Amino acid sequence: MNKYTDATEEEINNTMQSAWDAFNIYRKYSLKQRADFMRAIAAEMEAIRDKVIPVAMQETHLPEPRLQNEFARTIFQLNSYAAYCEQGAWLEARIDTALPDRNPPKPDIRKTLVPLGPVIVFGASNFPFAYSTAGGDTACAFAAGCPVIVKAHPAHAETSEMVAAAIDKAVQKSNLPKGVFAHIHGAGFETGKMLVMHPYTKAVGFTGSYAGGKALFDMANQRKEPIPVFAEMGSINPVYLLPEKLQQSAAEIARQYAASVTLSVGQFCTNPGLIVGIDGDGLQQFITALGNEIRNIAPSPMLHPGIAKAFAVNRTKALTQKDVDTIAVAAASAKENDGIPTIASATATAFLNNPVLHQEVFGPYSIVIRCKDAVEMSSVIQHIEGQLTSTVIGTDSDIQLHKALIEDIQLTCGRLIFNGVPTGVEVCLSMQHGGPFPATTDSRFTSVGADGIKRFARPVSYQNCPDIFLPEELKNKNSLGIWRTVNNELTRNRVAG
Amino acid sequence: MNKYTDATEEEINNTMQSAWDAFNIYRKYSLKQRADFMRAIAAEMEAIRDKVIPVAMQETHLPEPRLQNEFARTIFQLNSYAAYCEQGAWLEARIDTALPDRNPPKPDIRKTLVPLGPVIVFGASNFPFAYSTAGGDTACAFAAGCPVIVKAHPAHAETSEMVAAAIDKAVQKSNLPKGVFAHIHGAGFETGKMLVMHPYTKAVGFTGSYAGGKALFDMANQRKEPIPVFAEMGSINPVYLLPEKLQQSAAEIARQYAASVTLSVGQFCTNPGLIVGIDGDGLQQFITALGNEIRNIAPSPMLHPGIAKAFAVNRTKALTQKDVDTIAVAAASAKENDGIPTIASATATAFLNNPVLHQEVFGPYSIVIRCKDAVEMSSVIQHIEGQLTSTVIGTDSDIQLHKALIEDIQLTCGRLIFNGVPTGVEVCLSMQHGGPFPATTDSRFTSVGADGIKRFARPVSYQNCPDIFLPEELKNKNSLGIWRTVNNELTRNRVAG
Repeated sequence: MNKYTDATEEEINNTMQSAWDAFNIYRKYSLKQRADFMRAIAAEMEAIRDKVIPVAMQETHLPEPRLQNEFARTIFQLNSYAAYCEQGAWLEARIDTALPDRNPPKPDIRKTLVPLGPVIVFGASNFPFAYSTAGGDTACAFAAGCPVIVKAHPAHAETSEMVAAAIDKAVQKSNLPKGVFAHIHGAGFETGKMLVMHPYTKAVGFTGSYAGGKALFDMANQRKEPIPVFAEMGSINPVYLLPEKLQQSAAEIARQYAASVTLSVGQFCTNPGLIVGIDGDGLQQFITALGNEIRNIAPSPMLHPGIAKAFAVNRTKALTQKDVDTIAVAAASAKENDGIPTIASATATAFLNNPVLHQEVFGPYSIVIRCKDAVEMSSVIQHIEGQLTSTVIGTDSDIQLHKALIEDIQLTCGRLIFNGVPTGVEVCLSMQHGGPFPATTDSRFTSVGADGIKRFARPVSYQNCPDIFLPEELKNKNSLGIWRTVNNELTRNRVAG
Repeated sequence: MNKYTDATEEEINNTMQSAWDAFNIYRKYSLKQRADFMRAIAAEMEAIRDKVIPVAMQETHLPEPRLQNEFARTIFQLNSYAAYCEQGAWLEARIDTALPDRNPPKPDIRKTLVPLGPVIVFGASNFPFAYSTAGGDTACAFAAGCPVIVKAHPAHAETSEMVAAAIDKAVQKSNLPKGVFAHIHGAGFETGKMLVMHPYTKAVGFTGSYAGGKALFDMANQRKEPIPVFAEMGSINPVYLLPEKLQQSAAEIARQYAASVTLSVGQFCTNPGLIVGIDGDGLQQFITALGNEIRNIAPSPMLHPGIAKAFAVNRTKALTQKDVDTIAVAAASAKENDGIPTIASATATAFLNNPVLHQEVFGPYSIVIRCKDAVEMSSVIQHIEGQLTSTVIGTDSDIQLHKALIEDIQLTCGRLIFNGVPTGVEVCLSMQHGGPFPATTDSRFTSVGADGIKRFARPVSYQNCPDIFLPEELKNKNSLGIWRTVNNELTRNRVAG
């Protein structure tokens, strides 16, 4: 499936040495230089758009409009993170000026963020552009001042290779050391392991399965020097249907959710895999309508045979659990490697007693959990693992009535959506894409939006540092015009002295 | 040494259940309510000052002025973190308003920080007040909205008990649920392990040895749900002496460093345990002067017999390494459990070839490393493990001349000090107390200064959230008057709509 050979240990050692050497140059680059480099990558990407999209279509079986959108999003990420990088507020510059007359004298202390070092990025199978080679993790690491080593996803190795060549061009045109970016192939587990364990590796970005992300997390913590792993793993993205709203618009919500469950053959990390409602006419109408919608949605090819096989196995496993009813299956016949749209249902009691029903079935599948009442729904919420998103469907009066319940839902997720669908992750500063474990390995950071830059940096304080050595953003004159906290006040003013 | 009995598993389970119940109330408290609670603790602390300081003197052998200072610092931390908590900028509120006419429509998204959950704080032996029961970690967790469970340090259990009683009073007077704070005794390893492994525990704060911190970190990562551990562990805080400055002021620097090495019997995490200079007259004068100073400083009792014994063992181990010269030892005779001020010296070659010389000798000990030239100093820097602080002693022209070298030093530490001593950690927003591993387990956060609050919180996004459910800091009207980033612009204005 992959014409590229796995990197050898020697190649990886050479790659990491080059990355480290490049780090010692790139980390001193100004914010503007980093932003220019990121914009250069965006420009080189634009230049390959027409050539790379057909290759990605072939490798991933995703349709052209979906890939065109994702490609545009990738360019937007590079450009918007570049703008945010340059603007400098993310450095959280803090300055406390000296008080020489205090007893004891207070020194001058100034703090900014510095890059961690070379970052390994694992390409995601379901986002060949936006969360792969030149995707969000890569853009964030470059903005932070870190070299990037991409481990290509074997299911779209050719797409990855073409994007890597575009980045290489941008590296050359920006007169950056070659080692600032590297692209490594490796179909097996060993390549990733060697990269994560290398002493010059200082952080890891990953989007994929729980098993994969957790293995990287464990490895990284067993290093002599543990390093942070930002793994975005599985999520079933629960949707909670509140009674009044369901009574009003069961059919409309069903239509919306049939589309969301099957969007891109259900291959989004924010796919709604679990729908929780309170028994009654409204829920019954919703289930019937959702079933009717799903029957009319055709099976479609999944990303690669491995994912299709896993979907088939996990779907069968879920449907054959005790007290699980199959509500609807796509009526049209399916080809090999197709994902078959499917809706199941079970009682809250069954859900609470069976951990299998909490597991993600990656693909166009969702299970509707029927609760006797709000108390039972609350019980379900208490037993939900960490999630990327949770969604509440309710009228204002539903929300007012179930405030405590929604406050408990919020404990379990990184993003709380009202009256919408979880699929569709807006790239903006207010986005949190990262939830409590096991949704991600570090809920304190996001992998979407420019705040993701902070994953790859750490604070350093400079005490009584002469002006000649201070980083530009901490010098008195504030030539970058950035927001800084000076003696506890946020300001863009220069510091007197 | 400890009249208190270790908590049983049942007591710990009950404590954690109470903490969880309290969390579900306390996490909804407003910033002002949290700040008022912290100020109430400060007031109760003031009330016990005269009673608790003599007890701490007896338990820790630290002199009264040192403990009075530390007590004042503890009160200052509570009050200043309360003020910062209330002011709200730390929530990093971000608002992106909806664009309903965009295709597809852009939803309204707003992000703030929410508390992680119950936090275990391990008291530090060397800071019975400022990094123990009502210390920095406790203050940060309360500000973030988290309940705190303190594991008392057995070496000052009585002091800890008295401070815990003061916090309990503040809990009562603030009408908070009892479970918001708990105080647990446990001389053995098992108590700490049970606390860290409990499913309701969501984060850990620790200040102490590498062995202790690393054990907690490993445990926390092996949980079913891994949790963050902020362990501030050992550090040798290297000091780099540059030639011109040394030539000018060897004697003065020696005086300053003799005091810093022996301050509080060398029992600070920022104690300068390694001094690196370039061979020549200046360095020779410095070593001679430092030796003379050290001989005149009297041995003093260490915190507890365990620490005194470890110092004796590690000091002997260091002094008996190949090619290590003992430069000076305090002339006055020492009593049992005294720390004996000691200076050793070795060549850079010896240092580079012997990892034992990189290890912390916790107490009044420092080793001077003699480099042939700046190239050899650079080699030493390449082999330095992560540090809380590094210090550069140099004239402006020294700094200009050795800019690349200092940029490499900065890679290895959380705080870079110029022409000062590392002891003395200012409590202010610009302080970074946390360096690359093994100085701390997470270099991206600080344990000193109000930014430490962020250790115990995570971001949550609210998408299309009705006003009735939005947290106060995200509502259009901005009733708290806090700085927020609205559509990529930092502002205190209300949001239109």
